[in-house]
This record gives sequence, C-alpha cells and structure tokens, in this order.
Amino acid sequence: MSAVNTIWILLGTALVFFMQAGFALVEAGFTRAKNSGNIIMKNLLDLSIGTIIFWFIGFGLMFGKGNVIGKIDFFIQGNYAHALPSGISLWSFVIFQTVFCATSATIVSGAMAERTKFSAYCIYSAVISMIIYPVSGHWIWGGGFLSQLGFHDFAGSTAVHMVGGVAAIVGAKVLGPRIGKYGKDGQSKAIPGHNIVIGALGVFILWFSWFGFNGCSTVSMEGDAIENAGLIFMNTNLAAAVSSVTTMLFTWVRYKKPDVSMTLNGALAGLVAITAGCDIVTPAGAAVIGFTAGLVVVLVIEFIDNKCKIDDPVGAIGVHGACGALGTIMTGLFATEGGLFYGGGVKFLGVQLLGVVCVILWVAVTATITFKTVEKTVGLRVSEREEIEGLDTSEHGLGNAYADFLPVIPQDSLLGSVDQVLGTKKAIQDVPVEEAIPISKSSDYEVPGRKGILTKVDIIAKQSKFEELKAAMNEIGVTGMTVTQVLGCGVQKGATEYYRGVPVDVQLLPKVRIEIVVAKVPVEDVVATARKVLYTGHIGDGKIFVYDVRDAVKVRTGETGYDAMQGINEV
Amino acid sequence: MSAVNTIWILLGTALVFFMQAGFALVEAGFTRAKNSGNIIMKNLLDLSIGTIIFWFIGFGLMFGKGNVIGKIDFFIQGNYAHALPSGISLWSFVIFQTVFCATSATIVSGAMAERTKFSAYCIYSAVISMIIYPVSGHWIWGGGFLSQLGFHDFAGSTAVHMVGGVAAIVGAKVLGPRIGKYGKDGQSKAIPGHNIVIGALGVFILWFSWFGFNGCSTVSMEGDAIENAGLIFMNTNLAAAVSSVTTMLFTWVRYKKPDVSMTLNGALAGLVAITAGCDIVTPAGAAVIGFTAGLVVVLVIEFIDNKCKIDDPVGAIGVHGACGALGTIMTGLFATEGGLFYGGGVKFLGVQLLGVVCVILWVAVTATITFKTVEKTVGLRVSEREEIEGLDTSEHGLGNAYADFLPVIPQDSLLGSVDQVLGTKKAIQDVPVEEAIPISKSSDYEVPGRKGILTKVDIIAKQSKFEELKAAMNEIGVTGMTVTQVLGCGVQKGATEYYRGVPVDVQLLPKVRIEIVVAKVPVEDVVATARKVLYTGHIGDGKIFVYDVRDAVKVRTGETGYDAMQGINEV
Amino acid sequence: MSAVNTIWILLGTALVFFMQAGFALVEAGFTRAKNSGNIIMKNLLDLSIGTIIFWFIGFGLMFGKGNVIGKIDFFIQGNYAHALPSGISLWSFVIFQTVFCATSATIVSGAMAERTKFSAYCIYSAVISMIIYPVSGHWIWGGGFLSQLGFHDFAGSTAVHMVGGVAAIVGAKVLGPRIGKYGKDGQSKAIPGHNIVIGALGVFILWFSWFGFNGCSTVSMEGDAIENAGLIFMNTNLAAAVSSVTTMLFTWVRYKKPDVSMTLNGALAGLVAITAGCDIVTPAGAAVIGFTAGLVVVLVIEFIDNKCKIDDPVGAIGVHGACGALGTIMTGLFATEGGLFYGGGVKFLGVQLLGVVCVILWVAVTATITFKTVEKTVGLRVSEREEIEGLDTSEHGLGNAYADFLPVIPQDSLLGSVDQVLGTKKAIQDVPVEEAIPISKSSDYEVPGRKGILTKVDIIAKQSKFEELKAAMNEIGVTGMTVTQVLGCGVQKGATEYYRGVPVDVQLLPKVRIEIVVAKVPVEDVVATARKVLYTGHIGDGKIFVYDVRDAVKVRTGETGYDAMQGINEV
Repeated sequence: MSAVNTIWILLGTALVFFMQAGFALVEAGFTRAKNSGNIIMKNLLDLSIGTIIFWFIGFGLMFGKGNVIGKIDFFIQGNYAHALPSGISLWSFVIFQTVFCATSATIVSGAMAERTKFSAYCIYSAVISMIIYPVSGHWIWGGGFLSQLGFHDFAGSTAVHMVGGVAAIVGAKVLGPRIGKYGKDGQSKAIPGHNIVIGALGVFILWFSWFGFNGCSTVSMEGDAIENAGLIFMNTNLAAAVSSVTTMLFTWVRYKKPDVSMTLNGALAGLVAITAGCDIVTPAGAAVIGFTAGLVVVLVIEFIDNKCKIDDPVGAIGVHGACGALGTIMTGLFATEGGLFYGGGVKFLGVQLLGVVCVILWVAVTATITFKTVEKTVGLRVSEREEIEGLDTSEHGLGNAYADFLPVIPQDSLLGSVDQVLGTKKAIQDVPVEEAIPISKSSDYEVPGRKGILTKVDIIAKQSKFEELKAAMNEIGVTGMTVTQVLGCGVQKGATEYYRGVPVDVQLLPKVRIEIVVAKVPVEDVVATARKVLYTGHIGDGKIFVYDVRDAVKVRTGETGYDAMQGINEV
Repeated sequence: MSAVNTIWILLGTALVFFMQAGFALVEAGFTRAKNSGNIIMKNLLDLSIGTIIFWFIGFGLMFGKGNVIGKIDFFIQGNYAHALPSGISLWSFVIFQTVFCATSATIVSGAMAERTKFSAYCIYSAVISMIIYPVSGHWIWGGGFLSQLGFHDFAGSTAVHMVGGVAAIVGAKVLGPRIGKYGKDGQSKAIPGHNIVIGALGVFILWFSWFGFNGCSTVSMEGDAIENAGLIFMNTNLAAAVSSVTTMLFTWVRYKKPDVSMTLNGALAGLVAITAGCDIVTPAGAAVIGFTAGLVVVLVIEFIDNKCKIDDPVGAIGVHGACGALGTIMTGLFATEGGLFYGGGVKFLGVQLLGVVCVILWVAVTATITFKTVEKTVGLRVSEREEIEGLDTSEHGLGNAYADFLPVIPQDSLLGSVDQVLGTKKAIQDVPVEEAIPISKSSDYEVPGRKGILTKVDIIAKQSKFEELKAAMNEIGVTGMTVTQVLGCGVQKGATEYYRGVPVDVQLLPKVRIEIVVAKVPVEDVVATARKVLYTGHIGDGKIFVYDVRDAVKVRTGETGYDAMQGINEV
Repeated sequence: MSAVNTIWILLGTALVFFMQAGFALVEAGFTRAKNSGNIIMKNLLDLSIGTIIFWFIGFGLMFGKGNVIGKIDFFIQGNYAHALPSGISLWSFVIFQTVFCATSATIVSGAMAERTKFSAYCIYSAVISMIIYPVSGHWIWGGGFLSQLGFHDFAGSTAVHMVGGVAAIVGAKVLGPRIGKYGKDGQSKAIPGHNIVIGALGVFILWFSWFGFNGCSTVSMEGDAIENAGLIFMNTNLAAAVSSVTTMLFTWVRYKKPDVSMTLNGALAGLVAITAGCDIVTPAGAAVIGFTAGLVVVLVIEFIDNKCKIDDPVGAIGVHGACGALGTIMTGLFATEGGLFYGGGVKFLGVQLLGVVCVILWVAVTATITFKTVEKTVGLRVSEREEIEGLDTSEHGLGNAYADFLPVIPQDSLLGSVDQVLGTKKAIQDVPVEEAIPISKSSDYEVPGRKGILTKVDIIAKQSKFEELKAAMNEIGVTGMTVTQVLGCGVQKGATEYYRGVPVDVQLLPKVRIEIVVAKVPVEDVVATARKVLYTGHIGDGKIFVYDVRDAVKVRTGETGYDAMQGINEV
C-alpha cells in the first residue's frame, strides 16, 4: 500500500463527492423556488441510490475482466488485483469510482428538472448506476475494447460527462418541455432561475472539486504522476478561465450584455472539455480547448432550446454532452503525443471519434429504453396541475422551501397560451354555475352628467387559478390588473401535509389578489367570469369584492375617469 | 515527524473545521429567517470560544495523564508525548482535537435555536469546551478508564455526537418549546424552516467533511492505516447512502410522501451512527448500521417531539444523540473482531453499552447543572416579545438578515392560542382607551331595500401585534381576513440600531395590513376592538381606514352582498 | 519531485481557489440583491482574467530574476529553477501562485461593489494581475529587494491582502460613494446587506480555505516544514477565534448589541493579520495578534466610513488593508526569532515597516493611475439611473437574481435627499404636462355636517420613480403612505433582455403601489403632483385611482375622520 497514492485518491474522493453539492445548487438555483426541495431530494437520492447500486453490481460490471462487459459480482466479493492502481487498496478504489458514477447520474437531474416524477427519477437513477454507466465505463476504464484501442479519456469527459449529457437529452426529449416553455408559435420563453447566487456558488464548488476530479485521477502520487498532477491542475484551471472569458465576451456580442448564467455555464463547459486530455496537452492546448468550449456551449444551448425545442432548464446537454464529446475529440488534436496537431496523424483522433460515437450510441439506446419503459409503467411526468403547483408540494408535501418568503407568482403562469396549457375554455363551460348571479349592474350606479362609472373588482383567489383567471379576463376585454401576493386567513380543510412528521396546520394561506378597475367592461361580466373560473365547489374558492372608484387618472395622457380606462391598457 | 501522517491529520483538521459551516447552514435553514443572524453568530462563536477554551484548559484535561480526568495545564505547556500519534507534532494534534471539540459544542445550538439568550449560549458553550467534552473525551480518547476497558469509539459517535446530543436534549428541555410549537391540547405544530436549499447545502457540506472526520481519524497514513482509510471512506459513504434511502422510503410510507427535511436528517443519522465503528465493520455491516439509523432517526424525532414535547427545531437530539448511541452500541454487534455477530461474545458489546451509559450520565448531570445555573443567573431564554420579534433584532440589532426580501408573517403568529401565549385578554382590558370612539355606526350607512351593508376595514399595524389582533377579531365574530406585508412610511422614533457601526435610519417600516370586510359584525365593534389591541400610546400604533364596499360575491355559492359574508368564512 | 510536497501544494491550490467562492458570497451577501448577479460575474471574471494574465506575463514578472522586477516572459517559457521550491514542478508552482494572485484581485471587487462599470472592472482586474501584484510580489517572494532585506510575509498579509486592500481604498475613493450612502449633512447611512446567511457562509469558506492559504504556504512537507505546518494551522485558527470573540465583545460594548456582520469581518481580520507571521510566532503571539486585529478592524471600518467618507460596502479596506499591514508589522514584534518582544531588537521590525510602506506607495500610485485612466477613457462608474435600477439589469440584462422573490424597494430609495440625488425638482418642472388635470375637486365631495372628507389615492407606479414621488409628496404636505410591492399586468414594450440567449417576455412587471389617504391636502394636488413626477410620456407611466374613505381612526388618540389625519403623521 502507498501512503501518498492513498492520500491522493481519498482526497479526490472527498472532492468529487462534493460535486454533488455543486450540482444540487446549480440545478436548484437555475430553476424555480417551487421545485427546489424536489431538486435537493433528487441530488441526494441519486448519490445514495448510486452508491448502493454501484456497490451491489455496478463496480463488478465495470471493473471485472471482459472486453465488452465486466462481471456480475454482487457486493464486490471478487478479486480486482488486475484493476487496482499501484499501492491502492480495493475499498479506496471502490469509493473513488463510486463518486464518479454518482456524478454521471446527477447530470441528468438538471435537464429533467421541474416536471419529472420523483419515483420515476429514482428508478432511472438506479438504472444508470447499474448498467448504463458501468458498461461504457468498462470499455473506457475497465479494460474493455476502447481502452485496448488506445482511447484516452483521462478523467471522464466521455465516461462521466457525456454519458450523463446523452442520457439528459434523451430524458428531456421523452419528457417534453415544461408548461409555458414554448409559446403557441413555438418560440422559446425564458423561465428565469430563482437564485443565481446559489447557482454561482454551485459553479464555484464544482470548479473547486474539479481539481480532485481531474488532478486525483492520476490515482497515483509516484514517479511521473507527481509532475503530471501539477500540469493537470494548471490545465484544468486555465481551460475553465479561458472558457469563462470566452463565453462572457461571446454573450456580450450576441446579447448586447455579458450574460451571467450563460457565463457560469461557460466555466463548466471548459472544465468538462479539458477533462479528457488534461494530462497530455500543454497549457496552450488547454487554453484552445477552453476557448472552443466557451463558444460551443452557447451555440449548443441555443440550438437545443430554439431549434430542437428540447427544454433543458440548466444547460446540462450543452455543458456535459456537447463539451464532453468536444473535449474528447480535441484531445485527438492537441495531445502532445499522438495528437494530430503534434504530428501524431489521424489514428489517435480516429480512435477518439470512434469512442465518442460508440458511447453516444450505447447511452442513447439504453436511456431511450429506460425512459420509455418508465413512462409506460410508473409514468415519467407529473400531472399539469402538479407541475404548476410545484413539485415540492405535490411530490414531497413541502409547502414552500422558503417558508418565510412569499414567492412571486411563478413565471410560467405568465407564459404561453392558457387554452393550450390547461384548457380554460372547457373548464369555464363545464362549471355548473347558475347563470344569473344577482350582482348589481353597473348602470345602477351611473351618476348623471358623468360618462360611465369606475368600479374596482377585488378578487382574492387561489394562486393556482391565476393563469386561468387572467386568460378569461382577457377574453372579456379586461387587460389591466394589479396582482399582489397576500395571505388569506380562514378555515380550510384538505389533505394533511406533514413536515418532519408533524401535520402542517396552516391557517394562513398564500392567495393571490387581483384588483381590476373597470369602466367599459360591465362589472357584472367581470364578476360572473371570475366566478366561473374560480368555482370548484370547494371551500376556499375565494371571494370577490366590488368597490366604487371615485376617479382615475392616466398619467401619460392626463385623461381622467371613464376616459382614463380606455385605449391600450397600461399599468 | 511523518509527512504523510501530518498531511492526513491536517487535511482532516480543515475538513472537520468546515463542518461548522455545515451546522450553521442546517440550523439556519431549518429555522425561521428572523433568527438566522443569531444562528450564524452562535455557530461562529461556539467555534471561537471553544478554540480559546480548549487551548486554555480543555486539551490538558482531555489528554493529560489520569484515569478519570487529565491535568490542569493552562495553555498547553506540558508534555504530551504519551498522547501524540506516531509522527505527529503537538500543535498538529492540538488543532485536530480542537475542531472535534468545536463540533460537539455546535450540535447543541440547533436544539436550542430561536429562543436562547445569546449571552447564555456563549456561557454554555464555554462550559462544554472546558469541562463536559474534555472529561468524557478523556475517558474515551485520553487514556481514561473507558479506553482501558476496550471501549471503541473510533471518530466520536459517543465522544463528539452523543455528548452534543445529550447536552441538546437537556438544553431544549430546560429551555422549553418555542412559542406556538404546541397547541392548547399539546398537539405539536410544524414550524417550517425558512430555507431548505441552504439546509441541504449544510448536509452536503457535513457529508463531505465527514470524510475528514472519520477518514483522518486514523491519525496516521502508515502501515495498516493506509488500507483502513479506504475502508473507512467506503463505510462512511455507504452508511449515509443507505440511511438516506431508508429514511426517504420510511417517510414515504409514513407520511404518504418522501419528506425532504427528514431525509436530510436521515443522511446525517447514518453518518453519526457509522462514526464509532467505521474502521472495524465491513461494508455490509455499515449498510445495516445505516439502515437502522435511517429508521431510528425518524422514530426518535417523532418521539421527542410528540411524546416528550421537547422542541428540537433541527432534529439534533435524534440525529446526534440517538444515532450516536446507536452506532456505538451496534459496533459491539458488527465489529469484525469482537463483535457479537462475528462470534466475539457479549463482552465487547457490554463495554460499548457501559461507555454509552457512563457518558449519558456524565453529560446529563453536568449539562443540567450548567443550564439550570445559567437560567438562574443571567437567564437562559429571551422574553416572549423578543422571541416573537426574532432574535436577530432583539439580540443583535439586525433588522432583517435578508434586507431586500420581505419575510412573511412568522408562522408562529398563527399557531397556538393567543391567551396562552401573550395574555391578549389582559392586554385588551388594561388599555386605557376611552370607550366611546366616535366612529360612525354601520346603521348610518344602510341603504333602504338592501339587506345590510358591506364595509371594508383596512388596518395598518405593527407586525408584532398581528397575533393579538387576529385573536381579538375571532372573539367578536370576524373570522376572515386578508393579510399583506406592506411597507409603511412615516416618522417613527425609538432605539437606534446599528449596522456595521452606522445608525440604521429606517423610514420605511415593515407593517402588516389586515383587510376585513364585514356585514353582520358591526363596523364600530371591529374598529373599537382593533384600537384596543393596537393601542400602546406610542407613535406608530397604526391606523384604521373604513371603506364602502359596493358588493361582494362568494364564488362557491353565488351569494352576493350581505349573504356572501355569512356562513363558514372562507377566504 | 517530491510526492508529499506536491500533494501539499496542490491541496493548497484547491483550497485557495475556493476562496473565490468565499469572497463572492461575502460580497454578494453584504450588498443588495439587485447587484448580486454583477458581483458573481466580477468574482468569476477576476479569477478567470487573472489566471490568463498571470500565465501570459504576471508569473514571469514576479518570479523572473531581478531586484525590482522579474522578467518579461510570455506564457512562462523560461527557466525558473532558482524559484521553485524543493521537489515541486514548474506547473505545480505556477498554479499555486496563480490562485494567490486571483485572491488579491478579488478583494478590490467588494470595496467597489454596486456602482462600478463591469467593463471598467475587467480592465482593472487585468492590470492588477499584470503589473501591480507581480511587482510587489517580486519584491517579497520573487527574490526582490525586500526579500533580500529579510522582510517576512509568510503567506501574504502584505503581498496579497494589503495589496488588495490598498487598491480597494483607491478604487472606492475615486469611484465615490453609492447613491444614498451619505446624507446631506454627510452623515453615513446604513445600507444593509441582502443575505447575511450567504455572507456568513462566505466567511466560513474563507476560514476553511485559509488553512490552505497559510498552512500549504510551507510549499513543503519535508523536514521542519512538517512540524511547522501544525503550528501554522494552530496559529491561524487561534488568531481568527480570538479576533472573532474580540470584535463580538467590542461591538457589544460599542453598539449595545453584538453585531453580526462586523463580527464576521472580525473573523476575517484575524485571519488576514496572522497570515504574515503564522510560521514564526507562538500561539500566544497569534492570540495577541488576533485580539489586536479584532479591535482595529472595527475602528478602521468606522473611520473609513464616518471620517474618510469612503464607501466600502463589505469592509474590505479595514479587513485586508489595515489588518494586512497590522499583521505584517506585528510579526516584527512577536516573531520568536528577531521579534522586538523576543529580544530581537528593532531591525527586523524596521524592515517589516519599510516593506509595508514600500508596498503601500507602489500600490497607491499604480492603482491611482489605473483607476484615473479608466475613469477618463471607458468610464469607471455606471450612471445614476443604472445604479438605482441595479447593476444586474443595467449591466447584465438579468432582471432579478432571485426571480421568484420580490425584492423590497431598495433601501437607498429611502436615504438621503432626492434633490441631491436625482434632481427631482428639475424633473417636475420640466415635465410638459398641461396644468389643468380635470380631476374632481375634494370640495365636490364634502358632506354637510362633517369636517372635511377622506380620500384614498392609490398610485401604481414604476419602482424606480418611488423616491421622487415620495419627495414630491413630502413637499406638498403628504407624509404618510403605505407602500406595497405589486405585480402589474399590462402590455409594455422596451429593450429586449436575454436570459440564456432567450428573449425575456415579461408580461407581469414589478410595480410599487403607494396608497395615500388625504384629508387636508387637496386630492387634486396629490393627483397632479403624482402625475408630474410619474410622467415620462411612455407607456407604463402608471395609474392613479381615487377612492372614498368612509372613515379613519388614529389608534393612539382615538381621533376619527378628518382629525385622524392631522398632526404628526404616523403609519
């Protein structure tokens, strides 16, 4: 046993483990608050499930002897002397490999965020750790056919990141986009992340951990590995730095301003791309690889989003899929021994390409089978209602991951067409409401000598009804409204939710308050429409108040009263 | 001096130090925003005070020669050659032991969160670092009687975690529950944490750091320690993974949905439990220990909360106390040499049990004396008013740890009975308000031919008065209200608060706006009651506005006007 | 090549890199939400730009042979055998030095937060990495004249922290204070940070990383360095602990309550101060240095803020500048060999003082030239409008770093005089509004037999207009108002912003709602004034509604109706 080799590999284990925190924060930060508890759970569980499954069967499949596949060896009882690095004990090696496997699984989580059933995700996570990752990992690192051909993927641009990225594109495609992500015309809409600071912390944690991911993948601190480790650290940091600057400048040109979240993706893109060849390229080579990754990640994220219409909330496909492949192939160009640009000819480059293609095919096929099977059995996606409500509540009974802050109405309520999304019209027509609500008519209140009358309709409703209500109001001609988050206090019964084993006894419920001032549109229409939309027949449907408004002024034009409410509706 | 041993122990030092960040985030995230600055301070200070005290006297008491207690040796002037691991210098060993001591102290902070006086906590923190931890630590790790009997607690399931957990249960018991935690009927109420994402990051940081806590506790990277370190990493990760999955599934069955924050506790439970025996059990043994911990932590947290009525906001007692003891005892079952299940008989198991019992007794007695003494001298708990206001403001003059976000009204305002909490009735009766407020009577506004009249009462008040106001309104028959956080702008004088040495010159104050629409309940009663509750005689008592409401509609039933306001009040 | 030395230096590299996350969080947490995306970008980019520039030219200037300056050696092609520590490869040494350089650059970011142009910051960041840091670094660590004189700055109190701190004071001075930071009378105003929990996490990360910053600066794990590393860890932790406790107690005395954010600064102050001498002072010496730093940091931060009127939002000048110098000088007192208090005479102390003075002069001059040049070319500061809007939006097109939370109106809207800030009066007079808005007069609504009439004016406006509106209302006698953040729904056109390459299609806009109830002040004046302030002639100027208020009660006095609205306006 070697002390220095073991210190090095175990240091790497801890750092690569810490990537789970980085992924969890990037994914949570780049998505909406209402799903952040779910994202945390998925990251914690894919690590935990992956650990168990990789111990149970994955490690044997990956490191057992064999050309295409290793051995079935439950709970790692066999002899792996052929696979162990010099001076490293079996369990040191197993735990080091375990955290790499968990990294691959967790990449998928981001691309499938905000709409995947938790149970379905757990099943998928077991499958990638059990079969998908170990088999291609065997080809590359377990003595399989790619390693025999001379395929070089030092720390896993392909074996870890591209495997995750390809599974991510399959998963996101099968799953379909989030509600509101694409408009009627197919135009992509921005759904901003809820916490860019936390997302950025995730990126810093990932970069920090990457020194372990790449540096400690020497699995040795003896002989040439000592000097090589320094080069790897240098290349890893430099590629990420160049990539960040490149993406920053590229978005500055492209979007007029340097984009924050895309630049964060840019940093990760450089890290993924340099992972394959960090041990055999020069710092200059690393800089070129980083530069290329910084451009490619932007173009691929745009392409996936705008052209493929695949909804990847965190950019996992562009970062891990595209830049994983890119880095592996560019290693064939920039490797100081064997690389095309260093006089090594096309052979090594060809092997790198072959490896990338083989792994893409393997993962695409197995991931498709997995996701399609899950879709047809337990189901892959939550219901529309659950998605709008947020997965924290619907999947975990967690009312709000930020209980002391009142989240703004989710942006997706504001995107796309309602009909398309939830079938509002049908909902309105189906409601068994007696037609004649005895609401006082606007004309009853008209004042002689004044043109029309202004009335404020104040609607307190469930947040989940807001989108339907807004659409229905648009249909009857109401286009302006003021929306406030309020807390409504009243008695309301329903399914008991538990927080840490204690029933949550909420008496104050978050509600949305919509204030509409109308002049032309008859008040009775507004009230009747609101009632139709909000009606479910259950306690908690909401209330509507009507106030006189003495006067109103439109600032820009100086119009008052009835006239102030006409024309383009401006808030 | 050994380079590898020193690298290993100092790497461990840094990682175990980083646990302080993990604890700070778990505790802040699982509690309310209004106390998060205070929690940060407690974590920063118990580390700092612990460092100083352990240097001053704790280290000598723990590692000086002796059976029951070490030596009084101020500032570590003595000779500790007998205690130093091979190849480790004195200061390397001191700093390594210091961060373990600080970990034990910080565990208590979580269980006592949201209601403990800051000064009292600082005193307690000094006592645990000075006496409680060093003495039992001496028995276990300092050559004392337990270590002589063969008690095995590798990295501190008992010495660190259970010591913290037992002190936690004593502290939380003496302190009593947070206001609103238990209803009149004794029913436990959920008080959700304010930032689950930050809490989860804390758990990831702790898991990451635990590789140092357990792995580097070999305090050597020579001989057998090299191979053993790999096993320890494997066992630590596996136990935590199994425990997470177990808790997730267990809560899924028990609460119908997989609980986020309980699963986070589950991960920690596995880590605590494997700490005692991670060097002498097999991975299979680690998995069983993790599985057991994943169940036990849920049951104990529920038991402490529902049966013992001890309010532990973060689950520290279940995680560190129960699973610390559990892991120590299970080491007696699963140790490959000497464990009951491996043919070692009951002797070793008996020693493990004895050690747990001795330490529980020692900590329970000394912690009780400490907390009772503090309670009777400087006082242990803040006042009710300070607790409701939040410790950030009352203890640290920090208006809001999240100055740019407006926190929702604290959930505890909505829990429990007011009478029980703050003596509302007394407050109302004691207010020297002239009885006859010349408010216009509802009847003055009645419209001939319409049944009753609707009136909106709009109350702008101090947030801290909300609970009393709500209770008083319930008493006079008002059950529905809409509550909004608003910013009130006006001149208000009072105690000057400082932020970074600069007086905070707040002109916009967070207020609560309660809108009540009444029909049956006379407006004059609502106004008079509100005034009685809100009255203190100081500037800033608030204002009440009364509006006509032209009409109201109850969506579910279609009732309008007066009728809409009758029956069960639904928001 | 030495395995243990390389492990040690690369571990240090990863930890010092991680400081970037710490700085990013401290700076983001201590400033306002509206600038947090910009702060993240500055931290990510100064690291990235610094990495590239230091590779390009900085390393050569710092470690090439020479007395005053090293060599121009693009992309590190030369021979550095003279500079490499024993057993360390070139790239290991380069990457280790790179992360120290990036640390120095990032310190400046905090002092210049919330008002610096992003492009200007990128240029400055390149200059510090290219010239300022490498040259003084050469004097101290690169074999230059200070190192030849025996100047001792072990891990960079002066070379890293004071360089950053002096550049920070120059930058903050040239830039000027944030809008609203100083009142008309020059009185400093508190502008609270938006996320103290994240700021505290940053401090914990920095403390954790400091074990690498100081401990791994032995750049060796052989011979005496092994034992020395343990002492360094001990001293680093102890100084920070003593400093934290000192600052906590000092603020407790000074501000009546222990200040959270100042204590966080206190921890960093101790870390900075011990950095110069951590290898050659005793733990007792470290404690005294920490104690002194804990006092000095408070006094300097107050002095910089209150006396110098230099606006340093995060306290970078006090922490890194003052305590960097302090620690370097105190090393001349407490060094066990050569220190004044250990019988070493004044020579060593004199050299320490000389070094500090030389570096201050060098950095002050070069930083002044840099910032003045940037100011006169690309410009250093954003416009007032951009600063109020927030740099996230104006510089990066990021609408809100916390998209699901509605930030409170920035505190700076509430500070200082408007005239001074934005020229309100001029704005009002310049607006081409026809004078006679045909708003109904208050007198039209007077009820016979009641004194006056109450009217509610409800204004929905752009958030950025709030400050002007408030000032204008004060001028006409309105002093009380209720302010709510609302979401306004309407059609609004303008510059397209991009989020991750996708145009952000916002239909719900955050608006501010100002509700004013008036009695004495004529409604027509309120409306006309509001209109003048809000008028820009563009869609989205806002709307004003007028309601009857049936009655109002002032709780404290019992006055109702017209009388309730007189006297000191209290919300």
